[in-house]
Amino acid sequence: MGKVYLVGAGPGAPDLLTLRAARILEQADIVFHDALVHPEVLALAARARIVPVGKRCSQISTDQRFINRCLVEAAARYDTVVRLKGGDPMVFGRAQEELDALAAHGVDCEVIPGVTAALAAAAELKVSLTRRGASRSVVLATPRIGADQQAGEWAEAVAAADTAVLYMGVGEARLLADALKQAGVPGNHPVAIVQSASLPAASKLYTTLDELPRRAAEMLPGGPTLLVLGEVLREALTAHQRSEQISTRLPAARASRA
Amino acid sequence: MGKVYLVGAGPGAPDLLTLRAARILEQADIVFHDALVHPEVLALAARARIVPVGKRCSQISTDQRFINRCLVEAAARYDTVVRLKGGDPMVFGRAQEELDALAAHGVDCEVIPGVTAALAAAAELKVSLTRRGASRSVVLATPRIGADQQAGEWAEAVAAADTAVLYMGVGEARLLADALKQAGVPGNHPVAIVQSASLPAASKLYTTLDELPRRAAEMLPGGPTLLVLGEVLREALTAHQRSEQISTRLPAARASRA
Repeated sequence: MGKVYLVGAGPGAPDLLTLRAARILEQADIVFHDALVHPEVLALAARARIVPVGKRCSQISTDQRFINRCLVEAAARYDTVVRLKGGDPMVFGRAQEELDALAAHGVDCEVIPGVTAALAAAAELKVSLTRRGASRSVVLATPRIGADQQAGEWAEAVAAADTAVLYMGVGEARLLADALKQAGVPGNHPVAIVQSASLPAASKLYTTLDELPRRAAEMLPGGPTLLVLGEVLREALTAHQRSEQISTRLPAARASRA
Repeated sequence: MGKVYLVGAGPGAPDLLTLRAARILEQADIVFHDALVHPEVLALAARARIVPVGKRCSQISTDQRFINRCLVEAAARYDTVVRLKGGDPMVFGRAQEELDALAAHGVDCEVIPGVTAALAAAAELKVSLTRRGASRSVVLATPRIGADQQAGEWAEAVAAADTAVLYMGVGEARLLADALKQAGVPGNHPVAIVQSASLPAASKLYTTLDELPRRAAEMLPGGPTLLVLGEVLREALTAHQRSEQISTRLPAARASRA
């Protein structure tokens, strides 16, 4: 019976993989991977069979129970089985369902942590998610937009923490902003939209909760997008607003001089 | 003028460093490092001057302003300056103070994210911090024990999130548990204590918020210790309690048989 490694592939850039993950990929016999894993990361698994199971890979979405069964069956056939997930396996990676299936079949399993997207977003912004005296808590959350009873809980968690990083949600920015305001987050709360953090195509913009729906609608579709919210962004937002004011005023100043 | 890299050293194990961090360390001319960075990580910086600045390294604690000045001065003398921090630089790493000092002096700077300790703790527990339908939010927090107005805010943030990871606080477990109960966390809430996550000396135990002060007092002093709280731990806690009951009953059963 082989061993299954649940491996974090990191936030996007292939060199943000850990040394341990790289070593296990080199030894792997078979790799089941998510859609957003970089081709250079997969290339490390030179001797492995590569099986895409991410929903974005094919039009036929891969059922979670099917993935669970694949992992259990692969462990019976191969020594080193890798389940490669974007970011860190234990944060919004549906790892528990796979861990439970493996445990139920007595399959040995190890989790190799990875850099989760929130950390790459902070690096991209060059803004620390915590700050002495100003931010002692960071919440990572996925919004739940809907009319059911639990729909507001994620927003309460965001409102209670000093800093928040939302994985997903930019496509429903209006409903998301409404839910956050209802939970008590003020309209002038600083927000950063970070797209494709850690990749060459990375982009970022600063705005406020009030302006978020308009700015989100202007975003070009692209890589994974995160929202960062918190007073830790206030200085960056103010600097951005000031430079926008200057660039708006400049043509007028030139016109009056002419 | 050189460039300063704020680099995450990861949670402890030297092979949980990223490939990018390893490459920058190999190129480094000088490395300023925290106390808890593994010697094998420092060994990668083969051609660099190594300067410990972590408070646990020496009895003379290194003032943050002194570290800031060191980084600015090093950038004037060396091409590649590395500031190596445990975990990820942007989570409880006081990175902002260093980023601000570097920006004020016009020093070019890049942040290289790392695996933060919470992710290594989850890997150690083999329990996902999020779970479909059960946990949509994870808060990372440092407790603030005191009588001032802001003292309860971290506890409110923990109570509002589905899962929480507390960096520090095990030494003040009674005050911490009291603050969490006052914020509405129930006494039977599952808690895991994880020490030295990712290292060979790693240990973990499952308990409840009510029992936390007693169990924390029994812990041997050792590596960095995190607390994980949340219903995601319920199954692991129940399995643990069941095995404890069996082991408590066994001697009695043996005695009655004798």
